[in-house]
Amino acid sequence: MQEIDGNIVCTSLPYSEFKRHEGEVATVKGFIHNIREMSDFAFILLRTARELIQCVYSPEFSDFRLSDKVVEQAAAKVTGKIVKSETRDGSERFELQIHNIEIISSPAAIPPVVISKKQVNCDLAVNLDNRPVTLRNPKERAVFKLQEGIQRGFREYLQGEGFTEIHTPKINFAGAEGGTNVFKLDYFGKTVFLAQSPQLYKQALVPVYERVFEIAPVFRAEHHDTCRHLNEYISMDFEMGFIDSFTDIMNTETGVLKYIMNLLKTEYAAEVEMLKADIPEITSIPCIRFKDAKEMCVKKLKNITDMKDFEPEEEAFLGKWAKQQFNSDFLFVTHYLSKKRPFYTMDDPEDPEVTLSFDLLFRGIEITSGGQRIHDYNMQVEKMKRLGMNPEEFETYLMLHKYGAPPHGGLGLGLERLTMHLLGFKNIRNAAMFPRDINRVTP
Amino acid sequence: MQEIDGNIVCTSLPYSEFKRHEGEVATVKGFIHNIREMSDFAFILLRTARELIQCVYSPEFSDFRLSDKVVEQAAAKVTGKIVKSETRDGSERFELQIHNIEIISSPAAIPPVVISKKQVNCDLAVNLDNRPVTLRNPKERAVFKLQEGIQRGFREYLQGEGFTEIHTPKINFAGAEGGTNVFKLDYFGKTVFLAQSPQLYKQALVPVYERVFEIAPVFRAEHHDTCRHLNEYISMDFEMGFIDSFTDIMNTETGVLKYIMNLLKTEYAAEVEMLKADIPEITSIPCIRFKDAKEMCVKKLKNITDMKDFEPEEEAFLGKWAKQQFNSDFLFVTHYLSKKRPFYTMDDPEDPEVTLSFDLLFRGIEITSGGQRIHDYNMQVEKMKRLGMNPEEFETYLMLHKYGAPPHGGLGLGLERLTMHLLGFKNIRNAAMFPRDINRVTP
Repeated sequence: MQEIDGNIVCTSLPYSEFKRHEGEVATVKGFIHNIREMSDFAFILLRTARELIQCVYSPEFSDFRLSDKVVEQAAAKVTGKIVKSETRDGSERFELQIHNIEIISSPAAIPPVVISKKQVNCDLAVNLDNRPVTLRNPKERAVFKLQEGIQRGFREYLQGEGFTEIHTPKINFAGAEGGTNVFKLDYFGKTVFLAQSPQLYKQALVPVYERVFEIAPVFRAEHHDTCRHLNEYISMDFEMGFIDSFTDIMNTETGVLKYIMNLLKTEYAAEVEMLKADIPEITSIPCIRFKDAKEMCVKKLKNITDMKDFEPEEEAFLGKWAKQQFNSDFLFVTHYLSKKRPFYTMDDPEDPEVTLSFDLLFRGIEITSGGQRIHDYNMQVEKMKRLGMNPEEFETYLMLHKYGAPPHGGLGLGLERLTMHLLGFKNIRNAAMFPRDINRVTP
Repeated sequence: MQEIDGNIVCTSLPYSEFKRHEGEVATVKGFIHNIREMSDFAFILLRTARELIQCVYSPEFSDFRLSDKVVEQAAAKVTGKIVKSETRDGSERFELQIHNIEIISSPAAIPPVVISKKQVNCDLAVNLDNRPVTLRNPKERAVFKLQEGIQRGFREYLQGEGFTEIHTPKINFAGAEGGTNVFKLDYFGKTVFLAQSPQLYKQALVPVYERVFEIAPVFRAEHHDTCRHLNEYISMDFEMGFIDSFTDIMNTETGVLKYIMNLLKTEYAAEVEMLKADIPEITSIPCIRFKDAKEMCVKKLKNITDMKDFEPEEEAFLGKWAKQQFNSDFLFVTHYLSKKRPFYTMDDPEDPEVTLSFDLLFRGIEITSGGQRIHDYNMQVEKMKRLGMNPEEFETYLMLHKYGAPPHGGLGLGLERLTMHLLGFKNIRNAAMFPRDINRVTP
């Protein structure tokens, strides 16, 4: 009878341990990422979980011949001596003088796309078609390691602030925003919908846990084929109760973003450097009212005709303005027009034409929508009726209000969109491992 | 110009701080959960995010009259003096002598189900129909706070072991297991599927990050209407590369479970106590081969006819056996028959009739399936053909093998199912916030 006790022996030495073990023999497992043969020796880059380890082959100290078996994408176990390497700039670097390579498994074919160079140089479509291969490129995978850091920072900060992590159903009986951009599904003969947002569920959980968050996929059947929309993406949502004002929500988001950026600069420093990510410094985030921002845009830009919302050009202008005026990469725009916000948005009691809501612009592009929600039953029912909605269809949603809800609000932050703008990508598909758009559901 | 700096003032004092502030005046925000009027005073239980705070009303020290406004489910801000209370058993407890109650918001109606008692006493169907209300009951919400702890433990342990957290698409172009129990979706005119499992994606990411995990919804269109199946549930999955043997996977799961149980006993102690959760002690987990387990079942139980798999009765027997023999709540059963396992399962080279796979039984019920996967391209293609599958339909999946994969394996662990058995529930719906089954998609 064998017993399994949860102790794992890790035989792979991380690079960070190389200095301490200089002169010793180490074993490292990984993929043969790149082979550069010189006249009488060769450099072999070994790709481990998060690093590239430089290994040197030479008949002088290697007890084998570089044969056909040692090929790129083979999984291998390399044993060798840790030595200080010579670098052009005189910086301290260590490498492995290979004694022996044990090939653990071999590929059956050469990759269809070159992944052993600094970056994958092919059309985005080809890159995406070959995702299981192209993601092996260190720069490609670094994007999603960084993305892990973003969602981890969101979670860790909110956990520390007393938020409860929730998982709400993605098969819904009604579309959250009551809109048309929902995917329909046959569910044992009933027509149901894929969740566009956890909105109605996270609100329902405010009287349960006071503060909740969720990091989960959402689905939008939008016909857009743009560089900033995906049909499935990861939404980072939170909702908090007992707020004194909707600025509490903006304060929490500011705290979240500060925490994320700090986490990226520390625990994800290698990826930040590799991707040359421009991590913003955040002390405080300036706020401007929609009305004031609009006036400024009309004054400074030509041909502004839509007075109810912003064009991308205006958001870009506001982003530049925030940078010049406040040296801030972020700008909160508040008090959007009531008619442009969803039915659950709280109108400003001082001016019911506008709402206690906000967008957050990051370098001139919207990454968040949030705001205070209506918590009073009669107020919500009346607003629904005013908007031509039938409150009876929202019976279970309205249980929140009917049986007592505190003042509350929250926001949603798109993980891929934040990743995209942090890395300066022009296309959001670069910030999705396996993007889903109107033309793509593979791989 | 206002600036938002991420500092929030929390005015609600947690109960853990009461002792330190005995005799001082504190303010606590929460819901009026329960009012018990006595002849000349009243107990008011205030429900905060995670606690019930006992408050005492008395004309002696309260500067208001218990009016109609102070009703259950009102959101309130209570100010009062912290005093030591008298308890029957002489233990130390603190309560708030209410000076003042400010009603922040009032409910519009009395809840349709009594939630202010120790537990919700109604049919499960009524409970589920009224989920936005019934979840406010302290015992109901404790279930999902504990569930948060389970998934948090899964994540934290694997993070510490160098695993990368991933998010894979839930809209898939093929069913992972190639089976029939998938929900179909119209995706801009194409028929696509909801993910049954992240299986094929997590395997694809092994050569990228070596070790990955995901906590996300999966969807199964099973026609079952049983006490142990849901049609949407949260799957906790991991996959790890460069394993020496499939016991590495069982070792990792053992580590995960130890960590989770320890986390529950420490950071979720209040919920464990309230729910009387029987948290298992884990030192090591015994293993038995399917063949040996089957022989034992045949010897000890009557009417065993299916020699290829276990009936629930046999799993229950094995659970009891593990408890008696090893004092273990868990039992790994290994080497299931090849014909009963999915196409990607690695057969045992010493006996191709069986696989390098396992199930984990917890108190006699299966909570995990896992095992080593095939990593060699030709071996996988041949097995597919042998099973009558067309490898061409799995072209992007087979990129993993074709372009080099290390020996690897992993498992999936159902969050609701583990919660259910940890809490001794007879029905998995008790362990889902908003369960989805063949008859239910609401609320």
